[in-house]
Amino acid sequence: MPDTIPQAGELAAASLFRRHRAPAAPPPAWNAVLETMLAHRSVRHFLPRALPESTLETLVAAAQSASSSSNLQLWSVVAVREKARKARLAQLAGQQGFIDQAPLLLVWLADLHRLEAFAAAAGQPVTGTQYTEEFIVGVVDAALAAQNALVAAESLGLGGVYIGAMRNHPEQVAAELGLPPRVFAVFGMAIGWPDPAAGSDVKPRLPVDVVLHREQYQGAADPAALAAYNETLRGFQQEQAMRPTDWTAQCIDRVKDEAALRGRERMRESLATLGFPLR
Amino acid sequence: MPDTIPQAGELAAASLFRRHRAPAAPPPAWNAVLETMLAHRSVRHFLPRALPESTLETLVAAAQSASSSSNLQLWSVVAVREKARKARLAQLAGQQGFIDQAPLLLVWLADLHRLEAFAAAAGQPVTGTQYTEEFIVGVVDAALAAQNALVAAESLGLGGVYIGAMRNHPEQVAAELGLPPRVFAVFGMAIGWPDPAAGSDVKPRLPVDVVLHREQYQGAADPAALAAYNETLRGFQQEQAMRPTDWTAQCIDRVKDEAALRGRERMRESLATLGFPLR
Repeated sequence: MPDTIPQAGELAAASLFRRHRAPAAPPPAWNAVLETMLAHRSVRHFLPRALPESTLETLVAAAQSASSSSNLQLWSVVAVREKARKARLAQLAGQQGFIDQAPLLLVWLADLHRLEAFAAAAGQPVTGTQYTEEFIVGVVDAALAAQNALVAAESLGLGGVYIGAMRNHPEQVAAELGLPPRVFAVFGMAIGWPDPAAGSDVKPRLPVDVVLHREQYQGAADPAALAAYNETLRGFQQEQAMRPTDWTAQCIDRVKDEAALRGRERMRESLATLGFPLR
Repeated sequence: MPDTIPQAGELAAASLFRRHRAPAAPPPAWNAVLETMLAHRSVRHFLPRALPESTLETLVAAAQSASSSSNLQLWSVVAVREKARKARLAQLAGQQGFIDQAPLLLVWLADLHRLEAFAAAAGQPVTGTQYTEEFIVGVVDAALAAQNALVAAESLGLGGVYIGAMRNHPEQVAAELGLPPRVFAVFGMAIGWPDPAAGSDVKPRLPVDVVLHREQYQGAADPAALAAYNETLRGFQQEQAMRPTDWTAQCIDRVKDEAALRGRERMRESLATLGFPLR
């Protein structure tokens, strides 16, 4: 348990305000962990500077410290540092140039292969891993681990961003990383030193009461709260010199139909090809 | 970026050692965030003591500070504090008594309903959310948020545990929480003050090199590394007065066949019932 920051009321209020652009309830206490999390922003511009020695191993130890369902540890991570391989993966992930710039690309894997392989080697092949349940376990295990790694990186002054576009071409990503069947690259993560010249601010999120339900699900979101969030995000977009658009409209546009998924509508088929029948 | 802990070499080495029961590479720096994460242990025994005011809102603000795919924020959380509801959910989740004891039960949701509802209200119903891809996005968004909340709770001296058994009876859990179609309870999380009389130690994880692959997936795990981990975990189990069993054998047993999933082999069917066609 980290030291409570003394007289941290103002710091806490400022950090919470940045996240919601609205006054927040005074927190029970404030500390470096909350401060680091609340300050999160996705970083897509990196300095051409290497990471300190042992950074990768420390991030993985933090990742491993996250919970794992029944301690099965159904995840793995591939650390990519070779320039040519990063460039090829950047191509597969929507040609996002920052992947290439970052000194470290982590690809987080739902890994059912490891368990199946040692079970087969022990003469006790398993079949329970064929079910949708265990796919979910692998995805959740990978996500919990990854989130610890990103917060750990941020605590060290590094920055990073999740790369969902690593799911644009799952079969090609698997080939590039030499993944055996039953291993799925859930997302990538670029890590490096943030370029201070390209500083972005903390992105405001939905009002707490839109995502937090008490005792039971509260039904459709309050239209007034959504309108207020649209307004908040327009203000943020203007500050960041981005084209202001309603968040609700952006969300609708992103998932309006099959074509809007830009290839990822094939996910079920890709998973089948990669050995996930999702029974 | 939190203050680096000065002369933290010994503290860092001890924390990393506890996680792997093996000497680790010296970390690039050490701080309260890494210390909190590395000290994680699942807590299943709670004091009968309420949480400080605003704890819930602070945990949700931390959760919202995690990344969200395209900022769609496809997750929600239900905070359950009523004793009778907690007890009913404990029944559905494998009769785990600690759920009842904990002052707060959080149920983390993959939520495609909110977006679909405001899209329909705007006269622009969406269909892209029917695909497996968006189910994955909802599950990952919920997991990243939840992990921030748990680490935030631990930073405040609280403890908690993920409850995967919230997936034992997905339809009944949905009914209890009043979830509309297109909302899935991914897992629960019990939060409270750890009972010091039931202290557990940090659980050792697989050696770093088993989960960390460099440039490409390394193939089957090194049998010697798995044997060493079995040995490490047997030592831990003995310390904790648990029956020593090989980890590899436990894993095989947990997923050996359909019956081993104890109901969760129905997950695909449950998801269809809850409105997830996983196209």
